Amino acid sequence: MSSQVPSKEPWRLTAAEVLPLLRTGQLTVTDYVKSLLERIQARDPVVKAWIWIEPSLILQRAKELDGLPAEQRGPLHGLPIAVKDVILTKDMPTQYNSRLYESETPVAIDANCIITLRASGALIFGKTTTTEFACSKQGDWHQNLTSNARDPKRTPGGSSSGSGAAVADCQIPVGLGTQTGGSIMRPASFNGCYGFKPTHGAISREGLAQWSPLLDTLGFFGRSIDDFVVLADAFRLKDDEVVASEPFKMKGAKIGFCKTHNWPKAGQGTIDAMSEARDILRAHGAEIEEVELPEDFAHALDWHAAVLVGEGHTSFLGQYLLDKEKLHESIVGYVDNTRQLTHRQLLDAYDNVARLRPIFDDLAKPFDLILTPSVLDEAPLGLENTGDMSMASMWTILHVPVINLTGFAGAHGMPIGLTAVGPRYTDRRLLRVAKGVSEVFEREGGWSGAVR
Amino acid sequence: MSSQVPSKEPWRLTAAEVLPLLRTGQLTVTDYVKSLLERIQARDPVVKAWIWIEPSLILQRAKELDGLPAEQRGPLHGLPIAVKDVILTKDMPTQYNSRLYESETPVAIDANCIITLRASGALIFGKTTTTEFACSKQGDWHQNLTSNARDPKRTPGGSSSGSGAAVADCQIPVGLGTQTGGSIMRPASFNGCYGFKPTHGAISREGLAQWSPLLDTLGFFGRSIDDFVVLADAFRLKDDEVVASEPFKMKGAKIGFCKTHNWPKAGQGTIDAMSEARDILRAHGAEIEEVELPEDFAHALDWHAAVLVGEGHTSFLGQYLLDKEKLHESIVGYVDNTRQLTHRQLLDAYDNVARLRPIFDDLAKPFDLILTPSVLDEAPLGLENTGDMSMASMWTILHVPVINLTGFAGAHGMPIGLTAVGPRYTDRRLLRVAKGVSEVFEREGGWSGAVR
Repeated sequence: MSSQVPSKEPWRLTAAEVLPLLRTGQLTVTDYVKSLLERIQARDPVVKAWIWIEPSLILQRAKELDGLPAEQRGPLHGLPIAVKDVILTKDMPTQYNSRLYESETPVAIDANCIITLRASGALIFGKTTTTEFACSKQGDWHQNLTSNARDPKRTPGGSSSGSGAAVADCQIPVGLGTQTGGSIMRPASFNGCYGFKPTHGAISREGLAQWSPLLDTLGFFGRSIDDFVVLADAFRLKDDEVVASEPFKMKGAKIGFCKTHNWPKAGQGTIDAMSEARDILRAHGAEIEEVELPEDFAHALDWHAAVLVGEGHTSFLGQYLLDKEKLHESIVGYVDNTRQLTHRQLLDAYDNVARLRPIFDDLAKPFDLILTPSVLDEAPLGLENTGDMSMASMWTILHVPVINLTGFAGAHGMPIGLTAVGPRYTDRRLLRVAKGVSEVFEREGGWSGAVR
Repeated sequence: MSSQVPSKEPWRLTAAEVLPLLRTGQLTVTDYVKSLLERIQARDPVVKAWIWIEPSLILQRAKELDGLPAEQRGPLHGLPIAVKDVILTKDMPTQYNSRLYESETPVAIDANCIITLRASGALIFGKTTTTEFACSKQGDWHQNLTSNARDPKRTPGGSSSGSGAAVADCQIPVGLGTQTGGSIMRPASFNGCYGFKPTHGAISREGLAQWSPLLDTLGFFGRSIDDFVVLADAFRLKDDEVVASEPFKMKGAKIGFCKTHNWPKAGQGTIDAMSEARDILRAHGAEIEEVELPEDFAHALDWHAAVLVGEGHTSFLGQYLLDKEKLHESIVGYVDNTRQLTHRQLLDAYDNVARLRPIFDDLAKPFDLILTPSVLDEAPLGLENTGDMSMASMWTILHVPVINLTGFAGAHGMPIGLTAVGPRYTDRRLLRVAKGVSEVFEREGGWSGAVR
């Protein structure tokens, strides 16, 4: 069966666009993945988003999927998915960008999220680059220096570097990432694509590298909010309150703007993006309100830092004992507790931030969504340093769902993202509102996500 | 080299007793494991604690360890360890007592805790039985019905059934378990051995089956408190305050007795054990004080139940989609949310219990330790039902370290344990005090842990 090729090259399609074509056979999975493989062949020598990819495996799986009768096709039938290389896949190696895990032999089990995706019909495509164990420190690249999808001289951000760059570069419609600080929001913002970190706990993390159980969260990269809706369905994300099915109306919407206590670190690109977003939304009839966080929230970044150190101390003991010479010095430092963090400090961080979570939920509830910076500014020059996580960390430790929205540009024409936030477990409501907002930002924000 | 066989059969030795013999070569690892294998051969046809054990693999590893020069021997040199079959081991299958995981092929990775144990010189001996995915429900035994080490007609408790029974039965000195409700305290109490669940988060859980990230905790079974001290060293558990090295003195000790709001469920065996413990400690000069928990703690069990349901909903989605016909109906019920738990209820549970944690820490701090029931009563008759977790659940959700102490017996001569509790991250202090208390209970509690 040959495909009725759609009007744009298949590799340009978003997940939400391609799925109906694949399901009905208007586009075969085989033709689609061939288009993606061509795009990868053309572009990845520069971007270097993939650490392991095997075209013969992809084509074989595509053939199997094409052979499925319509009634056996899952909701994600044929959807190719890039997997950050800290997530176990039974048919591909998992190497964590660590010199301790150089074996090419797969470990024969899938992470729970991969089981769900495969059972829904998705095509697990290959493994994408990550900083060592998804920690984001200067120079923790054992191998492969991924570059930004928009400028090869700039960082794609980390730690979900490869998934962010590959999705923004149209090498794949959807990528999996993990976020412990800002590892989804930053690559999404830097490369110019959407990123979605659901509520902490809403998706299983079994089979993911563990750095901080309190913080580690699975999430996604995509090129439309609708792509996340499809994934949210597959993972059965559900709010307590039924979310309206009609499109969100901007007129009369209540949008909060939250600069956070970290605002003094914001660069001009982020300052301008926040201001432009405010003007655009107001012009569309939205009601804008500045959200001031209570003084306690000023400590959130310190508490986040304490948890990274304290839980890193526990999480990396095994690898440290295996061979600490093969670990990045920052990880060795966690295990050796070079910062002399006390348990008292760790417990204070846990208990204090637990107190803030319901306070933030209540504060966010009256808003349709809250907008806040994703990053300090455009992706910086150079590939060694993946950038600063501080704009994203507080939302990670508050466990709230966040979505990186695109549409704005910085001084060098690089994308600048803004983060949409909502209360815990209102992921579906956030997706609905974010979709409405994203359409306006894409049209009027001044930055085009189009790739050549 | 032949061993200088110690005065009692090697299989009777505790970890703390055997380690110096193994380290110095007074007993070879090979002779020691042969003694354990003989004990297992004699006893396990009745107890059925092991789900996977391969003598040739054990003997090969023992030979390798015996060949190590003294300076290369780790702190756990040659220590045989039983592993609950929900923990990944690279050289043995991991089957979760699930019909979804019947493959005998190991998955080629070790859980982080196994990496640490092997790197410390331990000998990973075999896999022990568990209820399905470490959930403890009536009739969730896909295969193997383990019996109590002290009475084959009674349950060993669950879900860490095999490790608890094997350790109490002197088939192995140390076993790994996991606790989400009471899955270490209950088997330790029912079989009559010590059990130790450290502070939640103090040991990595990467590579363990995930049911509830908030609750799942790795822990140990042993036949002396000193065994846990050895393990605490290997896992680098450390309090903020330096713990005194001299033995704990009972005279003038301040011991709290906490019946909890669950006391009305206590059976006569537990009521008597608490009362005898009080008399014994008082006779030794300890100052006893009843600890009344504030009224909020009455809800802890409800919050615990909500977390089991809410996190089970997320954790088992992959397995459900793989083949829900092969899952126990209680697990299917979590994914289908048959109890109609709302996210609001789950978040209330999270937030409320987070508020209680520092309150309990403060309340416990003035005491050398707090004693509380481990179980309702003796191990009940029958093997299908592994018993009630409710005496242990609150401590699990409070994240505090707990140790099951032995020494008491119920109406049928079966062991009754009591739980020693301390504030979070005071594991070393708790071990020190528990050692002093355990010696008194062993001598004067009226129940002998001796096996034939």
